[in-house]
Amino acid sequence: MEFLECLFCQKKYPLDLFDSFCPDCREPMLYPSPPKKRRFYPGKNYPLERFLDFLPLSKLDASLNLGEGNTPLVKLNRLIERTSLPNVFAKNETFNPTYSFKDRGSAVAFQKAVAMGLERIGTVSTGNMASSTAAYGAKAGLKTFVLLKEDTSLEKTLSVGIHNPELIRVKGDYGELFTKSFSIGRKYNIYFMNSVDPFRVEGYKATGFEIFFQLNHRAPQFIFVPLSSGGHLMGLMRAFLDLKKEGFIQQVPIFVGVQAQGCAPLAKAFASGKSKFERIKKAETIAHAISNPDPAGGNISLRMIKENNGMILDVSDEEIIEAQKMLAELEGIFCQPASATTLAGLLKFSKNVKFKTRVNIVLVITGSGLKALKSIESSRINVHQASLSDLENTIGSILK
Amino acid sequence: MEFLECLFCQKKYPLDLFDSFCPDCREPMLYPSPPKKRRFYPGKNYPLERFLDFLPLSKLDASLNLGEGNTPLVKLNRLIERTSLPNVFAKNETFNPTYSFKDRGSAVAFQKAVAMGLERIGTVSTGNMASSTAAYGAKAGLKTFVLLKEDTSLEKTLSVGIHNPELIRVKGDYGELFTKSFSIGRKYNIYFMNSVDPFRVEGYKATGFEIFFQLNHRAPQFIFVPLSSGGHLMGLMRAFLDLKKEGFIQQVPIFVGVQAQGCAPLAKAFASGKSKFERIKKAETIAHAISNPDPAGGNISLRMIKENNGMILDVSDEEIIEAQKMLAELEGIFCQPASATTLAGLLKFSKNVKFKTRVNIVLVITGSGLKALKSIESSRINVHQASLSDLENTIGSILK
Repeated sequence: MEFLECLFCQKKYPLDLFDSFCPDCREPMLYPSPPKKRRFYPGKNYPLERFLDFLPLSKLDASLNLGEGNTPLVKLNRLIERTSLPNVFAKNETFNPTYSFKDRGSAVAFQKAVAMGLERIGTVSTGNMASSTAAYGAKAGLKTFVLLKEDTSLEKTLSVGIHNPELIRVKGDYGELFTKSFSIGRKYNIYFMNSVDPFRVEGYKATGFEIFFQLNHRAPQFIFVPLSSGGHLMGLMRAFLDLKKEGFIQQVPIFVGVQAQGCAPLAKAFASGKSKFERIKKAETIAHAISNPDPAGGNISLRMIKENNGMILDVSDEEIIEAQKMLAELEGIFCQPASATTLAGLLKFSKNVKFKTRVNIVLVITGSGLKALKSIESSRINVHQASLSDLENTIGSILK
Repeated sequence: MEFLECLFCQKKYPLDLFDSFCPDCREPMLYPSPPKKRRFYPGKNYPLERFLDFLPLSKLDASLNLGEGNTPLVKLNRLIERTSLPNVFAKNETFNPTYSFKDRGSAVAFQKAVAMGLERIGTVSTGNMASSTAAYGAKAGLKTFVLLKEDTSLEKTLSVGIHNPELIRVKGDYGELFTKSFSIGRKYNIYFMNSVDPFRVEGYKATGFEIFFQLNHRAPQFIFVPLSSGGHLMGLMRAFLDLKKEGFIQQVPIFVGVQAQGCAPLAKAFASGKSKFERIKKAETIAHAISNPDPAGGNISLRMIKENNGMILDVSDEEIIEAQKMLAELEGIFCQPASATTLAGLLKFSKNVKFKTRVNIVLVITGSGLKALKSIESSRINVHQASLSDLENTIGSILK
């Protein structure tokens, strides 16, 4: 029998895919590390296979693979020159089947669903997680339910709907919907793999392991990651905690979770030294993908951050836009505003510290800018006009 | 000194980055294979390094790398079940920095530009090539000119403009603009890396080599690829011609170039046995990315296809839409209509043949559906409505 464990109550409970929250304190539970010695299988082609010992799976079904993982870690040379920062890298998670980090989580959650014989899955999301779940649901041939917010844009509806899941636009409070999905799931045998699903969290570990291998078997000193529900941060931290436990590294990186000022419940709690966050009443930020007023994994994230000397920052929309611009103009990386919080956070943090030159810093770029074109004001883009006959002069005057 | 060669005139001319067309017949020239024995370096991390012997580069500048390549080759199991086709794979080129195959070409063309000391580059494109060139231009820190069609949508303008190139919207005939860009380039020292640029073409070879390695050092029997200017098809064919020349394979795959019926100058020429195509007057297809009425590499493509027992097909917009739907609903792959021509072409072709079961077929998925959301009619997407209180009933009735 498999178990999940509650970090707060320090207890284990039998795995229940329809409710993975602690029966006592209602915090999300996590998949415990196995007692056995674990190793890597670097020769394997399919990325998850390399990390199988570290995943909550006893085997892999290759037919569920959409090609996730193996994303590049790119050094940001021009940014480094411009800012005199040390070695900064982007771990670019937009190189994934649906162009966001969510595919890492979906890949493992779907493996689990299929291994356990489930035929119906679902998610509550309007963004990256919705398209990821719909795509994996299509590949696996499972009946897939995607519960969307009432005001979801046509654009987003199309990019999820193209995979032909059961799309339901739900009127009402989105936080309540999150909770309600689990009871509905139990009734109809639908495994709702929402943001802090324990198998999603284990899936995010793969990104951490890849960073370790890409840095030649070393951990970076810092990892900056956008912070929303907390699931992604937890998974990344657990990767390095696993690496430490197995003796591959001596020290876990300093994790910096970054929130947008317009919706920063965890940054607020962290700044005031609280161990529990308070729900935000009104969220307002350009970084929609991390605009989460009541993050389900918020308290665990606060706890894990504190236990491992991490920190949580917030950044303004102006800082986010400036960072998005720098990544696009200096490094050719066009990311979502939510992803640009990582660079904005690093720039803010670096005002108060001096990094040693050998320090490695990783920014986790979580999602593609193509998914948030509406957040770019057209006034930011400068366009010249020319006719064929005066084109030569136009270019001449640009070069003057 | 480096040379380019004309396949038609069978002559070599000194390399001139500002004009790579044959001085005699004005067909695009290609980079000749070196006489030396070539090998692969499979242990290297940066994909281009593995193929360096086969590329027109003597060394690589890692600082130009955006993470291109290493894209997945995914078996389409559910499609195979549904259709009784043999082994069909998708080579998913949307796992690239700007989500299309164009990055393969840009990666090599930029290496060449920097190696030759050029500081200004440009391209004539409104689509995938524009964002790719702008992103690589940003990473390389080169002055980058992107010449757009007058009616380029705001959406596309934003996704290119975010990298801050010199964007010029040009009024006038787009075919003329293509030709004119080279004379302007010579005047101002701007290397216009357009669709059939010989270094772009060499860059596309990397995709072919990866397919060979992913199929355990074998060539597939068939490769289906969308056919527009011809540059991509030429590059892919040249990869397998190189593999054959070096003794890695006995037989080059059968290449099937696929065009949209609304703009099929090469399919028309192929069907009537002609060696030269005729320009199309009015192009009209949903597959915008391959809607090219006057393909610069059309005649070479016809020649290479004939010399290597390939073929050219055309498919209707209805077939394209149906294929796009099948890829999204059965395989979780959301691609541009242009990319869906590959499956549409395979389905059309398979009506008249029976494949042996051991046959491997590769569809090259060239670009992301996110870049062509407007081509999806919202009537194709079915959305249920529910309130929080009747959600349970709504799901119940869906499952009935």
